[in-house]
Amino acid sequence: MIIVMKPNAKVESIQRIKGIIEENGLNAHISDGQEVTIIGVVGDKAKLIDQNLEIYDDVDKVVPVTESYKLANKKFHPEPSKVKVGDITIGADTLVIMSGPCAVESKEQLLDTAHAIKKAGAHILRGGAYKPRTSPYAFQGLEEEGLAYMKEAREETGLPVVCEVTSLDAIEVAVKYVDMLQIGARNMQNFYLLKEVGKTGLPVLLKRGLSATIDEWLNASEYIIAEGNPNVVLCERGIRTFETATRNTLDISAVPVIKSKSHLPIIIDPSHATGVRDYVKSLSLAAVAVGADGLMIETHPDPSRAWSDGPQSLTFNQFEDLTKDLAPLANLMGKKL
Amino acid sequence: MIIVMKPNAKVESIQRIKGIIEENGLNAHISDGQEVTIIGVVGDKAKLIDQNLEIYDDVDKVVPVTESYKLANKKFHPEPSKVKVGDITIGADTLVIMSGPCAVESKEQLLDTAHAIKKAGAHILRGGAYKPRTSPYAFQGLEEEGLAYMKEAREETGLPVVCEVTSLDAIEVAVKYVDMLQIGARNMQNFYLLKEVGKTGLPVLLKRGLSATIDEWLNASEYIIAEGNPNVVLCERGIRTFETATRNTLDISAVPVIKSKSHLPIIIDPSHATGVRDYVKSLSLAAVAVGADGLMIETHPDPSRAWSDGPQSLTFNQFEDLTKDLAPLANLMGKKL
Amino acid sequence: MIIVMKPNAKVESIQRIKGIIEENGLNAHISDGQEVTIIGVVGDKAKLIDQNLEIYDDVDKVVPVTESYKLANKKFHPEPSKVKVGDITIGADTLVIMSGPCAVESKEQLLDTAHAIKKAGAHILRGGAYKPRTSPYAFQGLEEEGLAYMKEAREETGLPVVCEVTSLDAIEVAVKYVDMLQIGARNMQNFYLLKEVGKTGLPVLLKRGLSATIDEWLNASEYIIAEGNPNVVLCERGIRTFETATRNTLDISAVPVIKSKSHLPIIIDPSHATGVRDYVKSLSLAAVAVGADGLMIETHPDPSRAWSDGPQSLTFNQFEDLTKDLAPLANLMGKKL
Amino acid sequence: MIIVMKPNAKVESIQRIKGIIEENGLNAHISDGQEVTIIGVVGDKAKLIDQNLEIYDDVDKVVPVTESYKLANKKFHPEPSKVKVGDITIGADTLVIMSGPCAVESKEQLLDTAHAIKKAGAHILRGGAYKPRTSPYAFQGLEEEGLAYMKEAREETGLPVVCEVTSLDAIEVAVKYVDMLQIGARNMQNFYLLKEVGKTGLPVLLKRGLSATIDEWLNASEYIIAEGNPNVVLCERGIRTFETATRNTLDISAVPVIKSKSHLPIIIDPSHATGVRDYVKSLSLAAVAVGADGLMIETHPDPSRAWSDGPQSLTFNQFEDLTKDLAPLANLMGKKL
Repeated sequence: MIIVMKPNAKVESIQRIKGIIEENGLNAHISDGQEVTIIGVVGDKAKLIDQNLEIYDDVDKVVPVTESYKLANKKFHPEPSKVKVGDITIGADTLVIMSGPCAVESKEQLLDTAHAIKKAGAHILRGGAYKPRTSPYAFQGLEEEGLAYMKEAREETGLPVVCEVTSLDAIEVAVKYVDMLQIGARNMQNFYLLKEVGKTGLPVLLKRGLSATIDEWLNASEYIIAEGNPNVVLCERGIRTFETATRNTLDISAVPVIKSKSHLPIIIDPSHATGVRDYVKSLSLAAVAVGADGLMIETHPDPSRAWSDGPQSLTFNQFEDLTKDLAPLANLMGKKL
Repeated sequence: MIIVMKPNAKVESIQRIKGIIEENGLNAHISDGQEVTIIGVVGDKAKLIDQNLEIYDDVDKVVPVTESYKLANKKFHPEPSKVKVGDITIGADTLVIMSGPCAVESKEQLLDTAHAIKKAGAHILRGGAYKPRTSPYAFQGLEEEGLAYMKEAREETGLPVVCEVTSLDAIEVAVKYVDMLQIGARNMQNFYLLKEVGKTGLPVLLKRGLSATIDEWLNASEYIIAEGNPNVVLCERGIRTFETATRNTLDISAVPVIKSKSHLPIIIDPSHATGVRDYVKSLSLAAVAVGADGLMIETHPDPSRAWSDGPQSLTFNQFEDLTKDLAPLANLMGKKL
Repeated sequence: MIIVMKPNAKVESIQRIKGIIEENGLNAHISDGQEVTIIGVVGDKAKLIDQNLEIYDDVDKVVPVTESYKLANKKFHPEPSKVKVGDITIGADTLVIMSGPCAVESKEQLLDTAHAIKKAGAHILRGGAYKPRTSPYAFQGLEEEGLAYMKEAREETGLPVVCEVTSLDAIEVAVKYVDMLQIGARNMQNFYLLKEVGKTGLPVLLKRGLSATIDEWLNASEYIIAEGNPNVVLCERGIRTFETATRNTLDISAVPVIKSKSHLPIIIDPSHATGVRDYVKSLSLAAVAVGADGLMIETHPDPSRAWSDGPQSLTFNQFEDLTKDLAPLANLMGKKL
Repeated sequence: MIIVMKPNAKVESIQRIKGIIEENGLNAHISDGQEVTIIGVVGDKAKLIDQNLEIYDDVDKVVPVTESYKLANKKFHPEPSKVKVGDITIGADTLVIMSGPCAVESKEQLLDTAHAIKKAGAHILRGGAYKPRTSPYAFQGLEEEGLAYMKEAREETGLPVVCEVTSLDAIEVAVKYVDMLQIGARNMQNFYLLKEVGKTGLPVLLKRGLSATIDEWLNASEYIIAEGNPNVVLCERGIRTFETATRNTLDISAVPVIKSKSHLPIIIDPSHATGVRDYVKSLSLAAVAVGADGLMIETHPDPSRAWSDGPQSLTFNQFEDLTKDLAPLANLMGKKL
């Protein structure tokens, strides 16, 4: 941590800051510049996290120099993490494909989808049983009934299943049915929920918030890991920008940034990122090329009849075409599909 | 709802859309343009909310023409709403000032603050007992102990109290202590939580999400009202943009926009919007001039010792100066302070 | 300037940076932290502006601690500047109102407007003769003919006139007709144009770019002042964000931020910021309350017949109502209108 | 174009709009909905482009249904365009690599770079002689001297050269030396400049503005093409968002969006998009996989000594590694490198 003083800061102001730093058992290194004085803090800055050094007289700004997340930080855990979901490993040599409908609508819809995506080479079945929807009048999900279908689909196909949870109630039900819990974009900073999924020990798919910085996202993962659950997979799904040609803006750079800052695996969801079916294939190819550990792709037996997010869902044929096109690229990038 | 077809859409595609509209008990009006055909839907479009018309062949886009929120909509409730919190009315002729610390830290800190802000003319005491913090290692709030101090402060000063809730557990505790529940920016689309605060019947202060559109914000209020709880007050607290000179960007235009679209009262929180104490007074004046129904201002006995958000908190003297400066402006705008 | 080294930076890397700093005639203060080493640069960092210290081995980041603009900086020029336009002074005790049509369309339209706004109390006439338009097929302005009408309007009413320039050609023509040159949002970082308006010595109204930070905006003003022309007035006109309820998002906090960082006057343009006539009055009131030195408001004899930006233009009656409402607020804020 | 009326719009208001449409030689189709009336305009809406229908009584909003750009529009020119730069064709079966320094600094630097990138497989040499820089005190480019070095580099290596122009003066000089003119991000809506590069007939590389929508970008290309110059290549170089981990946010979805809306070729500049050398390779791979027609990559003999944008430049070795890694991917995507 560096404290930059204002030009012409009074000596007493500088001494006061130095005193606070030392009271906290840290050392202060003072550099008197021609324009400003800078104070470097030496020691574990966590002790200062709830101090408000900006508030003192003559302090211009406080610049953090180390990240506040530790357990998710590559500096302290240089090896890439592998996360097991059922018998699938994310972050290893397989390009992991998760697929399925945005919302579970019926047993038939889900089982048809599960069989179709398995045949096309997918590894994990996704499906929403608790749906966060902008309007209270839109379909909100089948809840436990939907989870039961998910479990049944796993039993029929062997595919592990992942499902979003939106409350403690949902978690308590979901742990009985699913292999992986998903935290959706709108709940990325629902810290209460993060702690609760942390406590379950189940692998967690943590989607990036619509306007979350990468730093905030890694801090969110820290909430889960700090509960003793290191099984976190990140999912980039587009951020909110001024551009309206796509539903969100896929921040593909997040993959190399995350790989340089954290050891956690990261996958990409091009379906939510664009909201447009026609763009899903090219963005999936880009995701593999950029080094993502996997993909999450929405599929539906009849997208035009989907109860949620139909415009971005692929038909089974389209999905099969997609995995065929992805395979040689995955191989080129040193991954299996 | 309007469906815009692609140029050269096939007749069958147009007839298919017409069929779906009519199957849902609605009427389709077809306009054949020189470049494109447009289909207007006549009737209650709610019946189509989970249809995905974009997905069909030759559909270019679907343009909604009516808002999805009804209970929060000025069209169906033209009179401005008034929300009572204890014996204070928000949305009437008083400019309502909420103030207090970001986080409740101790009984003494809270009671000192309560007395000071009351003396300076504030109407409602705020204080956080459940604190959403980016890092799991930052102070997370005193929880029930903090709520108990809030209640004690109300008993001593007569000021109603408002406190953020972040989970169902927190709601169940808070209803025993506070007069108004706050939903924070990070939980604005935690729909589960919205429904739960709706069920309590207590007045709710609904902060705008960091990257929520005004339309999404009003839909979030709709979740609360749809549970039978019309006592919603909106709070603009800055949105996330590219500008870093302030913590967030105060979207002051939200006030006239909300006043034109909804009957709900709206207040402004300049403390969180800017994150900088020195800018709070001028933005408070702007908020009153633009027509806000109230303000939420952070205060602290010693901001430099605050455990959270010190840099944006006012001292008691600064707060008293502020209310003195606000009073003549409030009067000019036809409000009491 | 502070250089933050990576954890475990090699001694040679640190010495290399120290060497570069010293080669440039500056001093390096090294602080060895527990986690990282920090190097403070003492001296005039301008000497390092084209060095790329980030590129060296083991450098984590370079943190500037002083602004790159000097002539626009309040630190080196603490007194607020006053800018004279004709016999009107911006930045003094008058709330300066600029008004007129988005585009000059005809002599009659402009003269009618000039008389109407003068009667209502405006101080400066605005009108566009060179119009930057998104589409090449939209009306591009009357060019010199429009400027001649501007001059005629000044002769008839005595109001100084301001007009946007978009090229050196336009500048060469405009200096013969107008009292103040405007740089529009799209040209805020057209550095060539900034230098050219700097050379004219005429007062310049510098609009903020759609996605310009305040720091970039002040650096743009520095280009003008560095040519020997200190007569710069800033104009906040809304930034681009994700919100679509208004055309842009008025960043009203820019006023106190600019007042704390610079001595230049700043005005607000609520017409372009919102794009909606109905919101202009309340945002004008907010602008005065927040401390802006003036306003720029679009007016038109018949907005529905305007060739550009009609939806945000006020009729003459609406404008007169507006100035009547602004006057008591201006007085309360210590300004004349 | 569709005009959506407000609920309970008066019959006279609807008739007035109908009248205006018909006065302009168009037809109005009226659909009376249960909630609102919608008016579809049939005919060439260009005739209404400077009408302000939003302004009329009882009009809620005007929804455009066709794009304002025609010459850049895929609807009217379905075949992908090919643009020749010297003897290199962009938009055909070669993945075109442009490379070189951000700024031309010396003859030696440029010639060394030209030889190195040619050897590594690049097709076009880039180099800035007119540099738009945020601060007036930063290096602004060698101007004509730099262009002369560019020409010399072409003569020595046979590589066509591209250079940014920032004013009419610069264009007049540059046409004597270079094969392709670049319009930088900050000038994307400098419409005067767009017309001038259009008039030259030289191929134009049009970078996307920092906060330009794709629609605005295509309209900017329309300015060039409308001058009779169809040789436009688009370049996505990152947009401005809230994320600060990268200098800008690469909007990789722009490639499939442009491919669906326009026939113009599009390349990606990962160097400016991220500002970080370590991320350039993975984003280059992503760019090829997503279907871009080429890449623009900054290289420098000694990035740590670069006068501009060193942190994002590759060394010659890094660039050679990059082209080696790109080749098999390009082949897989059906392109030569």
